Amino acid sequence: MTTLPATPPAEAGDDIQLTPDGRLRHLLTLRGLGREQLFAILDRAEQYLAPPDQPVVRSDALAGRTVANLFFEPSTRTRASFELAAKRLSADVLNLDVSTSSRIKGESILDTIYTLQAMHCDVFVVRDAAVDVPRMIAGAVREGVAILNAGEATVAHPTQGLLDLLTVRRARPDLEALRICIVGDIAHSRVARSAAEAFTTAGVAELRLVAPERLQPDAAAFPGATLHDRLDEGVEDADVVMALRIQRERIADAGDIPDTADYARRYGLTESNLAPAKPDVLVMHPGPMNRGVEIDDETADSPRSLITEQVRNGVAVRMALLEMITETHAGGAA
Amino acid sequence: MTTLPATPPAEAGDDIQLTPDGRLRHLLTLRGLGREQLFAILDRAEQYLAPPDQPVVRSDALAGRTVANLFFEPSTRTRASFELAAKRLSADVLNLDVSTSSRIKGESILDTIYTLQAMHCDVFVVRDAAVDVPRMIAGAVREGVAILNAGEATVAHPTQGLLDLLTVRRARPDLEALRICIVGDIAHSRVARSAAEAFTTAGVAELRLVAPERLQPDAAAFPGATLHDRLDEGVEDADVVMALRIQRERIADAGDIPDTADYARRYGLTESNLAPAKPDVLVMHPGPMNRGVEIDDETADSPRSLITEQVRNGVAVRMALLEMITETHAGGAA
Amino acid sequence: MTTLPATPPAEAGDDIQLTPDGRLRHLLTLRGLGREQLFAILDRAEQYLAPPDQPVVRSDALAGRTVANLFFEPSTRTRASFELAAKRLSADVLNLDVSTSSRIKGESILDTIYTLQAMHCDVFVVRDAAVDVPRMIAGAVREGVAILNAGEATVAHPTQGLLDLLTVRRARPDLEALRICIVGDIAHSRVARSAAEAFTTAGVAELRLVAPERLQPDAAAFPGATLHDRLDEGVEDADVVMALRIQRERIADAGDIPDTADYARRYGLTESNLAPAKPDVLVMHPGPMNRGVEIDDETADSPRSLITEQVRNGVAVRMALLEMITETHAGGAA
Repeated sequence: MTTLPATPPAEAGDDIQLTPDGRLRHLLTLRGLGREQLFAILDRAEQYLAPPDQPVVRSDALAGRTVANLFFEPSTRTRASFELAAKRLSADVLNLDVSTSSRIKGESILDTIYTLQAMHCDVFVVRDAAVDVPRMIAGAVREGVAILNAGEATVAHPTQGLLDLLTVRRARPDLEALRICIVGDIAHSRVARSAAEAFTTAGVAELRLVAPERLQPDAAAFPGATLHDRLDEGVEDADVVMALRIQRERIADAGDIPDTADYARRYGLTESNLAPAKPDVLVMHPGPMNRGVEIDDETADSPRSLITEQVRNGVAVRMALLEMITETHAGGAA
Repeated sequence: MTTLPATPPAEAGDDIQLTPDGRLRHLLTLRGLGREQLFAILDRAEQYLAPPDQPVVRSDALAGRTVANLFFEPSTRTRASFELAAKRLSADVLNLDVSTSSRIKGESILDTIYTLQAMHCDVFVVRDAAVDVPRMIAGAVREGVAILNAGEATVAHPTQGLLDLLTVRRARPDLEALRICIVGDIAHSRVARSAAEAFTTAGVAELRLVAPERLQPDAAAFPGATLHDRLDEGVEDADVVMALRIQRERIADAGDIPDTADYARRYGLTESNLAPAKPDVLVMHPGPMNRGVEIDDETADSPRSLITEQVRNGVAVRMALLEMITETHAGGAA
Repeated sequence: MTTLPATPPAEAGDDIQLTPDGRLRHLLTLRGLGREQLFAILDRAEQYLAPPDQPVVRSDALAGRTVANLFFEPSTRTRASFELAAKRLSADVLNLDVSTSSRIKGESILDTIYTLQAMHCDVFVVRDAAVDVPRMIAGAVREGVAILNAGEATVAHPTQGLLDLLTVRRARPDLEALRICIVGDIAHSRVARSAAEAFTTAGVAELRLVAPERLQPDAAAFPGATLHDRLDEGVEDADVVMALRIQRERIADAGDIPDTADYARRYGLTESNLAPAKPDVLVMHPGPMNRGVEIDDETADSPRSLITEQVRNGVAVRMALLEMITETHAGGAA
């Protein structure tokens, strides 16, 4: 176990995503946002949550606005979540599968953005495999246009972090008392990064990161968390355990782990591996799950699973962000 | 010619698609639906038909609802038909090309469904190459979520069967007097299966299935129909003749048919091959047509062709189904 | 320098795109349209232009109508422009990636059109790599259905020509006084063809076409223009210079041009190459740009660049066309 320093290093993005008076202009990273700012987003998201058997909450908040989904990496669930969030706020939505069209013609990302901005797109939802692309775009667009980071390399997935925090807060409101464990390929996980930032900023009692030794992250990227290579250390007395998706090819990189079965035995969420946790421990997974690897069926489908809640909360968080960011820009233009 | 038994074998789907009082909860198969139920759908569809030169009929019946098109097999026309049906009822529509995104990540179909259900999708329109996928999904979704089968392996394409029945009923209302012939690769055709179920349930006088011997179906799958390997037998005194699309690779499987030209000569709808039929015989094809194979230009484009009507009626049938299913679930939730 | 005859050869399309009283039924080509007709479209488009920091102009002009985007060639920007134009007029929009679905099943283009027409699509936006496809479709659809050509082989891209003319007219209203130069692979450019038709019809003082010798067009296709192989000849005292996108493989075809660097040196828009032009010369490019080839960064991003304006005007032109064409057909149906 290694104790990490509490001071976060400087990070790109937190300087341009807020207005001088602290309102959200873009969402690039959770770093640099305070507890009150995160909670304001979650509070707004709560307003967009309806019970599963009730009609969705809709509004006209983005009527006349255009949201462009720019996914330079393929995605089903995150793209669908943003698309539904935007449509339920009455926005026009443009889905661009950029990998197969203009980028093969050699146009730069920024020229694609300038083009879409000239077509009066108001919000760009951006997923890219390269670091700093959302921030680069945010630095280039005109006043009035907002960027939402929908997944950036291995470093940030802020809407995922927010929905994870919302999910935990709704299930266990006493956040300061919680021990949370994240297990998996922490080194390559943007989900882990943003979730850790959210949980740490929210003030959880303890955040533990569990990974095979060669998949452990640079400790400096996770201030306030502790690193472990054994799952039993991570889950001991834990209130919440979140498994990350593992790429099969990463398992080979992990050194002494011969196969997915061995990974499942040592790091998978199962009733037996969760035995050291609190009896009412909750489990999470960002999806898509490799059932039988990161988590077994029994655990994934048990009442302790918050996995469906995470998805449901994701739409609400994205609606809240779209609405708040639009308000910021409307205020700026006035 | 073989006469088939009139009793249908038990089939999956008919047990869960109806509420106890007989309202439609899902549409998985036409098997198990009675004549009145089919006609109630067609009657509703008639309300959504407008003449070609008049504006489409629209409604707010699905305002606030989300329809997800999940096509695990590629499709243009059926997907477009469902998409337009949903949009004209004011639904939000989510198109998911599932083959290229989450499924390559290894997520199970049911986890994809659970995810989209958690995003508050109300209706799943599902096409899949595997048997029983729509029924499996219908068995897994929560109360309030409906499945529409948009094409299932070789066994069911119920919205196609309904639109075919609507097309015939509008052109020749005296269904009990009709001799209908379906010709083509009956063995592998979900279109033939569902159309046969629709025509049989509606009580047509005679249903004849014509196929090269090796493309003839299991007789038990087509109760009440007769099987033929000669087109002239099938079309004799027929009121309606429907050609099926043939895959070129199937022709080789058909044994003694050397090529598409020979198939066209023996099984293609041409004025000469249709000579034994009634003088006012009508022709149908589910599309997309291989012109010159299953049907020649003269016949496809003649006044006796109902092919365009089939397409037009397809949107209306799908609007009717979306509306009826939504009413069932709204009633169930109340 | 070659002077070309002023009489345009007959061209397909101009005979069926107008009603007897001169209203627009389809837009297939700019050939055959007069100055007043072009200006009427531009005037309408001006009504749909909003400043970048203001909300877009929207209307209900196409409420209840369906616009189908049929792109048989991939496209991001033109498809997005038409999609947003249609949505901002409240149309239902159907995007069909035709290359990957029904066409691989062997259906003819016209059968795809008949199918979509039967689904009550009102407007087809068509891009195709083959000559005459939009005209063939326009000749086949029923009264009440309109075709907009969104790019046809190397011969026509009329909405691009209109947006180019609108862009020039807004920046330099005194069109009759302008010297305009288009530089690039003129021989293979539908953009050059339609822009030349627009500028010539609008009555510009002089239109010069600059291309490497082997990429020069058939002179008869550009009546009223002059052909040049040296850029300095073309830009001398020019008011506007438009660069075309060059395919890298075309450079090899161009004979004595060894590589893109040499192309850039001889034909690229740079401050130095533009020195012979008027001091306030404006530059244009249809996008997507190969920066450093057809145009360098300094020029593309300078205040003299109208490139962003072209994109912005493109949405407005397409809104105007959708609205005007719909009015024609509504009038025809009444």
